[in-house]
Amino acid sequence: MQPSELSLVAASDAIRQRRLSPVELVDSVLDRVEQVEPQLGAYVTVAAEQARRSAVAAEREAATGRFRGALHGIPMSLKDLIDVAGLPTTASSRVRAGHRADSDSTVAARLAAAGAVLVGKTHTHEFAYGLTTPQTRNARDQGRVAGGSSGGSAVAVAAGTATFALGTDTGGSIRVPAALNGVVGLKPTYGLVPRHGVTSLSWSLDHVGPLTRTVADAAVVLSALAGHDPRDPASLPVPSGNYGHGAGGPGASSPDLTGVRVGVPRNYYFDRVDPQVETAVRRAIDRFKELGARLVEVEIPMTRYIQATQWGLMVPEATAYHERTLRAMPDLYGADVRILLEAGELMPAGDYLRARRARTLMRQEWARLLDGVDVIAAPTVPTTAVPAGQETLTWSDGTVESVSDAYVRLSAPANITGVPSLSVPVGNDGAGMPIGMQLLGRALGEAMLLRVGHAYELSVPARETQATEGL
Amino acid sequence: MQPSELSLVAASDAIRQRRLSPVELVDSVLDRVEQVEPQLGAYVTVAAEQARRSAVAAEREAATGRFRGALHGIPMSLKDLIDVAGLPTTASSRVRAGHRADSDSTVAARLAAAGAVLVGKTHTHEFAYGLTTPQTRNARDQGRVAGGSSGGSAVAVAAGTATFALGTDTGGSIRVPAALNGVVGLKPTYGLVPRHGVTSLSWSLDHVGPLTRTVADAAVVLSALAGHDPRDPASLPVPSGNYGHGAGGPGASSPDLTGVRVGVPRNYYFDRVDPQVETAVRRAIDRFKELGARLVEVEIPMTRYIQATQWGLMVPEATAYHERTLRAMPDLYGADVRILLEAGELMPAGDYLRARRARTLMRQEWARLLDGVDVIAAPTVPTTAVPAGQETLTWSDGTVESVSDAYVRLSAPANITGVPSLSVPVGNDGAGMPIGMQLLGRALGEAMLLRVGHAYELSVPARETQATEGL
Repeated sequence: MQPSELSLVAASDAIRQRRLSPVELVDSVLDRVEQVEPQLGAYVTVAAEQARRSAVAAEREAATGRFRGALHGIPMSLKDLIDVAGLPTTASSRVRAGHRADSDSTVAARLAAAGAVLVGKTHTHEFAYGLTTPQTRNARDQGRVAGGSSGGSAVAVAAGTATFALGTDTGGSIRVPAALNGVVGLKPTYGLVPRHGVTSLSWSLDHVGPLTRTVADAAVVLSALAGHDPRDPASLPVPSGNYGHGAGGPGASSPDLTGVRVGVPRNYYFDRVDPQVETAVRRAIDRFKELGARLVEVEIPMTRYIQATQWGLMVPEATAYHERTLRAMPDLYGADVRILLEAGELMPAGDYLRARRARTLMRQEWARLLDGVDVIAAPTVPTTAVPAGQETLTWSDGTVESVSDAYVRLSAPANITGVPSLSVPVGNDGAGMPIGMQLLGRALGEAMLLRVGHAYELSVPARETQATEGL
Repeated sequence: MQPSELSLVAASDAIRQRRLSPVELVDSVLDRVEQVEPQLGAYVTVAAEQARRSAVAAEREAATGRFRGALHGIPMSLKDLIDVAGLPTTASSRVRAGHRADSDSTVAARLAAAGAVLVGKTHTHEFAYGLTTPQTRNARDQGRVAGGSSGGSAVAVAAGTATFALGTDTGGSIRVPAALNGVVGLKPTYGLVPRHGVTSLSWSLDHVGPLTRTVADAAVVLSALAGHDPRDPASLPVPSGNYGHGAGGPGASSPDLTGVRVGVPRNYYFDRVDPQVETAVRRAIDRFKELGARLVEVEIPMTRYIQATQWGLMVPEATAYHERTLRAMPDLYGADVRILLEAGELMPAGDYLRARRARTLMRQEWARLLDGVDVIAAPTVPTTAVPAGQETLTWSDGTVESVSDAYVRLSAPANITGVPSLSVPVGNDGAGMPIGMQLLGRALGEAMLLRVGHAYELSVPARETQATEGL
């Protein structure tokens, strides 16, 4: 196994035990970038020289006995909405031509301080306003979409060109590409991870979070990201936490889930879902039962309002953010994004307020729902990665749905309500395309999600090398 | 002195010491209602029989040694936006004809549990959407406006027809009538007092709070009102607190303000202000200095945005609340309110979002401002009560301003930012009309405001009987 294929925790252990040097690891990842990046298109910018310098510094520190923690010397990629001082933040858009960030975003600064090594900036659907990331190809099948908007991040982690990555998630943009590429994606509780220095799509729905190869890896990255920053007005006044080993997060070895109540939706989450996806998710849920969990059927509230609320919040907030550039340089936006932004100019305040009020009620209903269970298990997306260029899906009941609507449908509730959601791979469909299951939990209930996700992971055969099998 | 003229604290002490019975007190207040209410028009509903029954019950409890606290047997009035089970909540509007509340609002329930006796429901400017309360006349001069929208509450407290009252404040609606009628009004921190069961004007700006004869009285009422209620989505997760004697709130005797930093605005709050108002407020500020406080000149931030932000938030939120009745029965609204509600239907989401973003920045700037001082002292309103029917004011610089704009101008910043503001009487103008000074403080800094306001009160000659001198 190449170092580039290691999980974060495995690479970190190897570095700590001096079996692997940060330079070897970064070189292995950069070799992998050279090898596969031309086919994948995950990266906007590869900062190879900077990465090597950082790795050398990390190695020197390690040699003097200074070890910053589990991220020391670990190669990462950041979605290109996340500011890194001195690099452009292109948002994968021509609108940002000539851009250069003056200072680090909070998350970039925290990861750098924790010793992580930046490999580069990865592609997003333009300004995160879409679910396919057309510049990037799926890590398993280059004829299929990467998913989005954090498509580049998911593909980099899946393909071995970054050990972990950050994405952003406004309607599913971390979890959708994570599911479609067979990696783990965590959308944390709204306000847990500060967004200062991260380009906004819709500030009341935007989240930053990790994409990783394992749940244990996600816990490690979250530990470095979480905690209050007053420069994000929505940042929660919570201290940083340790979500890793021995902190109520993933335990090292025991997959026991005795006493955990897993909610299984009787409505919404299994409607209009590909049968292969449903089968894989229900099999994973059965696994929870074998591990000692109690399954509880739950009713998802206010489902009629989900789509209208998501769009009613997102469309005007996105337009407000882009107001000036939309007037100054409309033609530099892609047609799909420009049309959505222009639509936002026509929305009355009353529609936005209706969406806000619906959200308030949904938050209350979901809090009540989550009083009765510890997590809810459901598909992340109703189907696997579609061939690039496919625009619609036809369901068995004859309904036709746009791919974008389908990809956002099961993810949006966690954005609207702000509850955390963790997507974990639960197998492949007949074409070998990955299937994702999401675990939703209470606000600030990340430790429970990570514990349950990790227990599942421990209970299935290791799939460390699976992610790269398509290449 | 009649019992109806006593401050809450004085009446409470007399009841506790068996010098006064709740029945005597309520009868005295009801006598006063009969005597002055025909001239004042403060009440929508007087619940005389219910009040007598409650007083008898309070007296019996007291006779058995059960004393619920400082509000035991104290007569109060509630602005007629506040639900009391079994009574109509008219909002002083024909739209509410035939209304009857099924259950108590949180604040009505808390006050009833604390032993307060409801005298009746007081007039509001229709649905709180205005600053004059035309049904009600000023307690000092019946040819002048009561101010609004909690005009009935302020007049009742000033005229002796309630020992204390509750109002609501969206742009100054507690503090403006308090100032114009010579009583104390407190708009607490946004989210401190739950609004469940209180008719909304603009939910992101609405507050419930007390109108009283003294600052010590306001501290007692706030102690009964404050504390979390999940049924108000904006309610802060704070426990109820004791703002009265010995709790960091008003001390019993010492007016010492050594070490307290009082911010004195160099801009905004003294612009376009009646010279008599300015003189009275500056004299009160000098008094703080004599009491040991340090005066610190402060710059009020983002003043250009205050009016647009207040209106940009309020207008669409009010329209959203009234959406159905505005369509079903537009003619039952007064013309002034209907026009404002209809204007809200035309507002684009982008304008509302601009107001929200401006508010976010203003909150940050004000938090920074209030890092440097303990309170800010300023006029509550730029002028005293105008004659009923007067629509505009002409300032010495030649500018003409609507009375409504003038009355809301100095109050709105505390609504936008959510910081607490306490209005205290600081004398009269040449026509004998009361002048109010507001003290603004940090979020959840009520104890400091009450301490400073109480110190001022202790330092000036008692004015217990002043409030009724106009009748």
